[in-house]
Amino acid sequence: MAQKVVVIGGVALGPKAACRCLRLAPDTELTLVDENTFISYGGCGLPYYVSGEIQALDALRSTNYQVVRDPEFFARMKGFKVLNQTRAIAIDRAKKTVQIRNLVTQSEEYLPYDKLVLATGARPRVPNVEGHDLGNVFTLTKLEDAQSIRQACENGSVTEAVIVGGGFIGLESAVALADMWGVKVTVLEMDDYLMRNVLPESLGLMAENDLVQHNVTVCKQEKLLKIEGKNGKVNRVVTNKQTLAAQLVILAAGFIPNGQLAAQAGLETIGNGAIKVDAFMRTSDPDIYAGGDCCATQNIITGKYGYLPLGSLSNRQGRIIGTNLAGGSDTFPGYVGTWAIKLFDLSIASTGMTINRARMEGFDAISVCAEQLDRAHFYPEKDMMCLEIVVEKGTRRVLGMQGASVNAHGLKARIDAVAACLQYAKPTVNDISNLEVGYAPPFASAMDIVNVAGNVADNVLSGRFTPISGQEFVKLWKERANNHIFFIDARPARAGKAMEEKNPDWHAIPLEEIEKHLDELPRDRQIAIICNTGLRSYETLLIMQRKGGLNNVLNSLGGMQALKQMGLDRDL
Amino acid sequence: MAQKVVVIGGVALGPKAACRCLRLAPDTELTLVDENTFISYGGCGLPYYVSGEIQALDALRSTNYQVVRDPEFFARMKGFKVLNQTRAIAIDRAKKTVQIRNLVTQSEEYLPYDKLVLATGARPRVPNVEGHDLGNVFTLTKLEDAQSIRQACENGSVTEAVIVGGGFIGLESAVALADMWGVKVTVLEMDDYLMRNVLPESLGLMAENDLVQHNVTVCKQEKLLKIEGKNGKVNRVVTNKQTLAAQLVILAAGFIPNGQLAAQAGLETIGNGAIKVDAFMRTSDPDIYAGGDCCATQNIITGKYGYLPLGSLSNRQGRIIGTNLAGGSDTFPGYVGTWAIKLFDLSIASTGMTINRARMEGFDAISVCAEQLDRAHFYPEKDMMCLEIVVEKGTRRVLGMQGASVNAHGLKARIDAVAACLQYAKPTVNDISNLEVGYAPPFASAMDIVNVAGNVADNVLSGRFTPISGQEFVKLWKERANNHIFFIDARPARAGKAMEEKNPDWHAIPLEEIEKHLDELPRDRQIAIICNTGLRSYETLLIMQRKGGLNNVLNSLGGMQALKQMGLDRDL
Repeated sequence: MAQKVVVIGGVALGPKAACRCLRLAPDTELTLVDENTFISYGGCGLPYYVSGEIQALDALRSTNYQVVRDPEFFARMKGFKVLNQTRAIAIDRAKKTVQIRNLVTQSEEYLPYDKLVLATGARPRVPNVEGHDLGNVFTLTKLEDAQSIRQACENGSVTEAVIVGGGFIGLESAVALADMWGVKVTVLEMDDYLMRNVLPESLGLMAENDLVQHNVTVCKQEKLLKIEGKNGKVNRVVTNKQTLAAQLVILAAGFIPNGQLAAQAGLETIGNGAIKVDAFMRTSDPDIYAGGDCCATQNIITGKYGYLPLGSLSNRQGRIIGTNLAGGSDTFPGYVGTWAIKLFDLSIASTGMTINRARMEGFDAISVCAEQLDRAHFYPEKDMMCLEIVVEKGTRRVLGMQGASVNAHGLKARIDAVAACLQYAKPTVNDISNLEVGYAPPFASAMDIVNVAGNVADNVLSGRFTPISGQEFVKLWKERANNHIFFIDARPARAGKAMEEKNPDWHAIPLEEIEKHLDELPRDRQIAIICNTGLRSYETLLIMQRKGGLNNVLNSLGGMQALKQMGLDRDL
Repeated sequence: MAQKVVVIGGVALGPKAACRCLRLAPDTELTLVDENTFISYGGCGLPYYVSGEIQALDALRSTNYQVVRDPEFFARMKGFKVLNQTRAIAIDRAKKTVQIRNLVTQSEEYLPYDKLVLATGARPRVPNVEGHDLGNVFTLTKLEDAQSIRQACENGSVTEAVIVGGGFIGLESAVALADMWGVKVTVLEMDDYLMRNVLPESLGLMAENDLVQHNVTVCKQEKLLKIEGKNGKVNRVVTNKQTLAAQLVILAAGFIPNGQLAAQAGLETIGNGAIKVDAFMRTSDPDIYAGGDCCATQNIITGKYGYLPLGSLSNRQGRIIGTNLAGGSDTFPGYVGTWAIKLFDLSIASTGMTINRARMEGFDAISVCAEQLDRAHFYPEKDMMCLEIVVEKGTRRVLGMQGASVNAHGLKARIDAVAACLQYAKPTVNDISNLEVGYAPPFASAMDIVNVAGNVADNVLSGRFTPISGQEFVKLWKERANNHIFFIDARPARAGKAMEEKNPDWHAIPLEEIEKHLDELPRDRQIAIICNTGLRSYETLLIMQRKGGLNNVLNSLGGMQALKQMGLDRDL
């Protein structure tokens, strides 16, 4: 008798698992249920439909080869039945049935299963404030949301918008509204800086600067209190600091995994409700699989269960579940946490842990940044890139890397290479210094910036110099009346001199001239050096150590380039 | 007493090792000798100086922070002495001295060393043919070569050029001459296709197609016989097939490592003369290090010693030697062989072994190709990418990956991620299917093409379908009168119909219609299917298997896109 499979959830993982299962075991009687009308769409593409870069909504529902994925498509081309507008109400694990309700007719029935797949996804976290249910207050996780937001923009009624939450969807929405529709956008972020859960401060500031330079207002440490309306539609947003006019609000305050069905059926979940799965993507009931945004998998670096709702993971996990439904025994290796986002000009990407996360997990870790051109410095086309590497002190183990660059794909190259190491090895700083990445002048420097990040970490861990971040440098500079630090700008003469003329506390001493000036440097004060990227300042510091015996020196990693990317050069 | 270090060779590895040593151990008495005038230049940038993309030769001799690296620079800023125009004649390992000769004064002396570094590089292989010493016949490994070639172009005397050798330098030179100077370039390649040592045939054909579309003539299986001249300068090149007019010839027939000094001193070398080093970059004499283009290191995949002269490896190895000279114990992990090259529009990159190489090394291997958009198919900007993955049959171990795309950095991302796996793990096909690379629609598909390459290999290894390459498909099509194969084009109707009208042996049956036509398909003939990228043809094949019981079916991997990239669509 043919195996019966029921899949609950029809966006990314569900259809993937179903299609894969049917390819390998075409006799399977598979039914997919989803409570929405539209299924199997590219949810990550929603901001690009909002912006208008993607013209038609159907583009998000189409295969690579331009066929729209509706229930009819899956029935005819893939060999399984789709019940959309149908909600799964309960799972009876003893009887192996799923109770479902047709949301149009309200009729209910029980679907028997041999194997069940939970692909129930996640729902947006909606702040429980007055007015969250007003017109033109949206979340952005469904096709219908994107359609409504774009319609509101198209009919010209939106000149000001407020985005609640400075995470992935919040920032992608901000870009979509400001870039293509010219809407005046304000992003509200409760935390100290944008994307604080997934980025170090430096890169959060770079993200902010990219937004600010494109006329998006970023309000940090600011909390939504209520949303006010007129004629049923939003017209004002009240925070703990101000009242903002707004004809559109997007609530992008994170996700809650849809683990309710699983929990009610007695399956194991983690704290936030996500369903625990093993390496085969099985829940605590071996006949029930779960994957995608509703599930918790093992973090390879910590060994602990964690939650990472990403479309890419859903797709890979879906294939594994499909294979296993068909009798295979494919495994998911766990996750390290790799992602990428494109803002206006800047792209940001990450793998593994940030310094904050590493410390929260109990690692005695440091992070250092490398700032360098992405291609050979003599090659005519090139962009700056900034990479921050997170390492455990004693073991020199690499725990993560984050980066930012205008060169989106070049950034992906560095982050993905480190991601591969984190996923399948326990890389040390030495391994990153020797990462054998592809080189030719149009692609990289001979010493690729990813290698340089390893080298900088090696030098710092070995005590060869004391680093400070760009933010720390600026703070020290602002507080110079109290800390008596001596500031050196090691850039070529012209750049530093302009600063020195503005302020005599700024000492422009180019690398080439430092030797002549060693006697003039104070021995009773700490010295902080900055240059363009952190390289000349390191060379300067070495000469000061070697020839001047000056050891109480701080090197500003990333130099003026990092300050510029963070928008902190304005504070000097 | 200060340690004495002598470094022989001043281009990439030598100065790197010297600088690193002095940073860590500033008391070292270090002398670097080099027989040329110019030292420490970016050799990989020479083609870009030839083309004029790099304006001034000094750009190749400058640091990141725009200081020219001449002997004075190293003495003053780095703390070591450079003797250029000075040749190392012999090493006396018992006395620990190097005999050197000043090439200007011809005076000789002996430099004592505690540690010696051999960074003697490689020399171009010059074909031993008549006329190889004529004027305007060059190799391209030194600054002076680049200068002479560009001068010849600038003074307008070069309208036709012949490049001997279709490897890295040959092709980069071809691009430089044709793109920027409008020279009519012919590339002579003895082998069956370009870059045969480092690429599979498919990608060699894609490289060729990119050149041909930019008016470079590529002559394969063609051998240089002699070079003829007039007034001491080349004016004709004679091959085994033709005589070509040429006012410039670049000999780019590979490299020979400069291992002579080492061999004479009794150090171990491998077959081609490269100096064997251990993980610490030490030769068979622990007081003598070697690195860069003169040395042989361990291939991580085969465990055998091999030779890979790349500027990126030199830089990384130089840092390791510098650390070890200063008393450290840094190690080089060996190489997997990662590289990248940009031609006109197309970039090509590789890591690990090609299918040819894997078979030569005794692996029972197959290779399959994946052709897909580099970004989400619904994202407005995107390019095609082709990846060929090489896997061992029984173990499913991944041995290498090669790829091509117009998106240079996107290609680097995929190849570098696999490179990292090969370097620090023994990845299987499953590991590549689950490689956790960064995703958002502007960066990748949710199922990244690198994952797809793993998936395709998995499907083929599991016997789910029989692949053929684009070249094989075209060959079968041309021989259809004899092989009686039934050809199906599964693309959307319009594309296939045009072909069918031209030739009734071509059966345009779009994926969506295959089910209706199952009864019409022949059961006594093999069937070959093609579509746009290989995805619709796979779907078609599955339906034919499942619903038609048709199992003798070949699927053309990469589809029409691969044929176009190879220029083989013209042969249909």
